[in-house]
Amino acid sequence: MNVVDLTTPLSAATPTLELPDPFVNLIDFSIDYQSEYDDRGPFWKHANIHTGEHIGTHIDAPVHWISGRGGKDVSEIEPTRLVGPAVVIDFSERAADDPDLLIDVSDIASWESANGAFPDNCWLLVRTGWDSRGHDRNEFLNKYDGGSHTPGFTAECAQWLAERDEISGVGVETVGIDAGGAASLEPAFPMHYHLLGHDKYGLTSLKNLQRLPSQGAVIVVAPLPIEGGTGSPARVFAFVDSTGGGAR
Amino acid sequence: MNVVDLTTPLSAATPTLELPDPFVNLIDFSIDYQSEYDDRGPFWKHANIHTGEHIGTHIDAPVHWISGRGGKDVSEIEPTRLVGPAVVIDFSERAADDPDLLIDVSDIASWESANGAFPDNCWLLVRTGWDSRGHDRNEFLNKYDGGSHTPGFTAECAQWLAERDEISGVGVETVGIDAGGAASLEPAFPMHYHLLGHDKYGLTSLKNLQRLPSQGAVIVVAPLPIEGGTGSPARVFAFVDSTGGGAR
Repeated sequence: MNVVDLTTPLSAATPTLELPDPFVNLIDFSIDYQSEYDDRGPFWKHANIHTGEHIGTHIDAPVHWISGRGGKDVSEIEPTRLVGPAVVIDFSERAADDPDLLIDVSDIASWESANGAFPDNCWLLVRTGWDSRGHDRNEFLNKYDGGSHTPGFTAECAQWLAERDEISGVGVETVGIDAGGAASLEPAFPMHYHLLGHDKYGLTSLKNLQRLPSQGAVIVVAPLPIEGGTGSPARVFAFVDSTGGGAR
Repeated sequence: MNVVDLTTPLSAATPTLELPDPFVNLIDFSIDYQSEYDDRGPFWKHANIHTGEHIGTHIDAPVHWISGRGGKDVSEIEPTRLVGPAVVIDFSERAADDPDLLIDVSDIASWESANGAFPDNCWLLVRTGWDSRGHDRNEFLNKYDGGSHTPGFTAECAQWLAERDEISGVGVETVGIDAGGAASLEPAFPMHYHLLGHDKYGLTSLKNLQRLPSQGAVIVVAPLPIEGGTGSPARVFAFVDSTGGGAR
């Protein structure tokens, strides 16, 4: 089996969500060395880190959203839900033409008609090509005309995905699981609202999805088990049959 | 395959290493909510986190130690080194009798004589029963008579393990990979010195090792890819054949 790292590195340059006023934004990532082989610690170098829970490649737990209030925090998500078959659907050509692309029910349903039903306990990973913008915060957030223009899902699609028992979570390449313009959908931020309200999980800022087969890979989502955490930066690996396989 | 979570939860209560004066300690873990479904963010709850890199279940990267200066930071460790067969050796009876137990070359070599050589790219996981003390910082650090009394390895064993090509890293249940009394060994903190100086990795505060077979499990070590990080809290899963298997 080959291991594919789907994780965005963490540093002060890692792009983060920017909420409009009056909402409170989380801090960017920072590292603060406390010794560097010096009199503070002669043999070692070590550091403190300061960061928002929701940064880089990270998972959203149910309690992150008001619809999941009373649900699981990130430490309570069962490991069996964090490991499962990955289904990768590629919308990168459409997102290149339309950064405001909203994926709808019919887009997913037609993929299933052609490729087969989703397996149990799966993670749906949506490729939009957005990872290629991850080196530049402005390109990644793609703000103009008073809003952020990044692809996502319709409210109908969000609800339809949330109500499907075979899905553990949905992963995307963008800064959040909702589209940049999702504040104006009904409900606002429908992926957050529906998925997290149905004990499903969101996974963001993935990269290297183009290295996965559309079916046949296994994903391991590894957030820190933060007690009371509403999410966590996560390391995410995929295991791919080294014959180049996957079922296609 | 069953998934076994080997990770200690992260909270303000998570025990951390306590260095003596004049050395600078890292901070404990803390979570600081920035909205809780309120006017700071009406639909969501989210938080900042502040923590040392070396806390709870965490990995030590080569640059953590002066012998690995110029080596890899935690983001540079190849994923293929973070996934591999787990060899679990149980020293819990001896550690219960002697909290200052230093595991020596002969202890490992005799295990191999009886059970077979280590597989390539393996992680050696050492069970001492110390995870049962993890709920209580005093019991976990076990300080008395001016020192910390927790099990570890002799300097000879540290060097011997570090020089073995088939080992990717060594995992323990204690707060660090070295014994509580390792400051007085030669070199001081020999596991840190030798392992990290040989591009091998340390993994600490593991739990649930008693749920693994001595051979046959696969471990996935998932630190955050912190650029410049000398280590990181890590989620660690083991995959175990659900027939109860493993070669024993």
